[in-house]
Amino acid sequence: MKPKSLLPNRPLTVAILGSSGAVGKELLALLEERSFPVGKLILLASHRSAGDIQSFCGTEVKVEETTKDSFKNVDLILASAGSSISRKWKDTIQSSGALMIDNSSAFRMDENVPLIVPEVNPSDAIKHKGVISNPNCTTILLALVLSPLTRHIPIKRIVVSTYQSASGAGAMAMEELEKLSQEVLDGKTPKSKVLPYSLAFNLFLHNSPLQSNNYCEEEMKMVNETRKILGDPELSLTATCVRVPVLRAHSESVNIEFTKPFPVKEAYEILEASPGVEILEDLENNRFPMPQDVTGRDPISVGRIRQDISNPNALELWLCGDQIRKGAALNAVQIAELLLPKNYE
Amino acid sequence: MKPKSLLPNRPLTVAILGSSGAVGKELLALLEERSFPVGKLILLASHRSAGDIQSFCGTEVKVEETTKDSFKNVDLILASAGSSISRKWKDTIQSSGALMIDNSSAFRMDENVPLIVPEVNPSDAIKHKGVISNPNCTTILLALVLSPLTRHIPIKRIVVSTYQSASGAGAMAMEELEKLSQEVLDGKTPKSKVLPYSLAFNLFLHNSPLQSNNYCEEEMKMVNETRKILGDPELSLTATCVRVPVLRAHSESVNIEFTKPFPVKEAYEILEASPGVEILEDLENNRFPMPQDVTGRDPISVGRIRQDISNPNALELWLCGDQIRKGAALNAVQIAELLLPKNYE
Repeated sequence: MKPKSLLPNRPLTVAILGSSGAVGKELLALLEERSFPVGKLILLASHRSAGDIQSFCGTEVKVEETTKDSFKNVDLILASAGSSISRKWKDTIQSSGALMIDNSSAFRMDENVPLIVPEVNPSDAIKHKGVISNPNCTTILLALVLSPLTRHIPIKRIVVSTYQSASGAGAMAMEELEKLSQEVLDGKTPKSKVLPYSLAFNLFLHNSPLQSNNYCEEEMKMVNETRKILGDPELSLTATCVRVPVLRAHSESVNIEFTKPFPVKEAYEILEASPGVEILEDLENNRFPMPQDVTGRDPISVGRIRQDISNPNALELWLCGDQIRKGAALNAVQIAELLLPKNYE
Repeated sequence: MKPKSLLPNRPLTVAILGSSGAVGKELLALLEERSFPVGKLILLASHRSAGDIQSFCGTEVKVEETTKDSFKNVDLILASAGSSISRKWKDTIQSSGALMIDNSSAFRMDENVPLIVPEVNPSDAIKHKGVISNPNCTTILLALVLSPLTRHIPIKRIVVSTYQSASGAGAMAMEELEKLSQEVLDGKTPKSKVLPYSLAFNLFLHNSPLQSNNYCEEEMKMVNETRKILGDPELSLTATCVRVPVLRAHSESVNIEFTKPFPVKEAYEILEASPGVEILEDLENNRFPMPQDVTGRDPISVGRIRQDISNPNALELWLCGDQIRKGAALNAVQIAELLLPKNYE
């Protein structure tokens, strides 16, 4: 018997909340590309973007301002307008009976909200009570690699440093990076407005709020969300999150200590067979994953898996993934796909 | 009594080998800025750059092509023209009796060649037999932080990820980054010639040759050189080296495990008092060292020292330093200064 919490078995009325952002636009593209069963598409945004026209499957769709009536008779809401907007509309959405897949951090650590990476913990999705959270972008990429490895040999500790693109701060941050880079090339002094400092030929520690332990919020998201997704509340993980002048793909340098030595060859075999992951390397040409390799693509790319010379039980590896795609929009659409009745037939 | 291996106590004849490169030009600027006792300056380069004019203390100096007679009656040679050039001229230089301070990796691991970071192991300099090596840029920055900390509580293991600027690959790589960034902004597809891949809005694992253990040469330099400088051949260190689209300052994300817990406050106090290191942070404004803060400056900047939440004996910290300056030219001039007789009076 199909669980009640599946989506209805008919063309769906789908609303995108925050359809004008970088992730919103990618959601639209992915619904079309993946032939998601959309019967009616509703694009919702703030007053400012209302009236804009976006294209979907050859038709033009007008962006509407979000109101309390926007969610009536909607089956699925893909929300990507930030935490405050998600918090503002959550109760209205829940009382409408629609399923909300939320890209913000608002409900990720709520014990009643599943936090899903479809390749990692798909069976948690069905436990939802109306809301499913999409994890943080860096967390999704990391979980895709950690999950298959820790099933083989348990992980003891992870040390990760990130190289995060401008897209993580939204479409306006991407535009700002291009604008300020041009200013630097023109010999001007760049002044940022969207990000706190200029990212043009520069980089800085992630600007999310500092916590009392001096980790920033982004780093603690990686720690707490990874623990929830992997179902291991005691997992030892430390992260340093850094914004770099790249447009839309994140990279991560990952050191993983296991409970015993993990043969490199086995790690390659396991990750090569893992859904959502590809090994991209050419040892002879010293060629490993780069942001430009994964931009606009679905899988995350992994390479340079090597025995850590400082610890017999540890491996080092390098990964890149498109932040807007697998780091956000693709993962959200994949969560919705988990709940299509046809996937239970 | 002054050791024989000091430089002569008079204005010196100084030659810069590779004077047309990014580091060569900075050497010239630093000799002037630091009032190094230059009696005569000789600028040496390849046939291609011979005849170029550079300015030193208000006079114009013509660049000469390097020949076997270039080193006669020279007291000090600051070499920064790459390993093959350093190897080519080493014997000629040594038979001339001059002191060679070499910025290349050619002799760094030679047991007869001291490898010096003046703030860390100055007393090793005097043991030279005609050649002193300047360490790799990332190693210099890291050693400045590790040395004072490990003297307080011994280090057990270090995990480091780097964010290395284009300048590490020379002046032409810096120009290429600017040129290719402009091409990307103009909607063109960038094609690199100096670096193996385009660094414009992209990044990649350091392109130095892969070793049999799948670490690249740059990473193994960090491991082996840090061991030599700290005088700890068993030091456990693992590194992932990454080139990022920044012009001339390197950054490093450093995780340091000690033999027991290291109070964060003490780490701040120790590094604050360490020569060559500054603490640059503004917790209230979430402001930590950035490449643009250290560009063209001497000290390396450290911030976000925090208790590692994954290991009670570990600290996390972040550092930035100018690659051309402290990472290369400044460190070389400081080594020469160690051997000025006035510093032994």
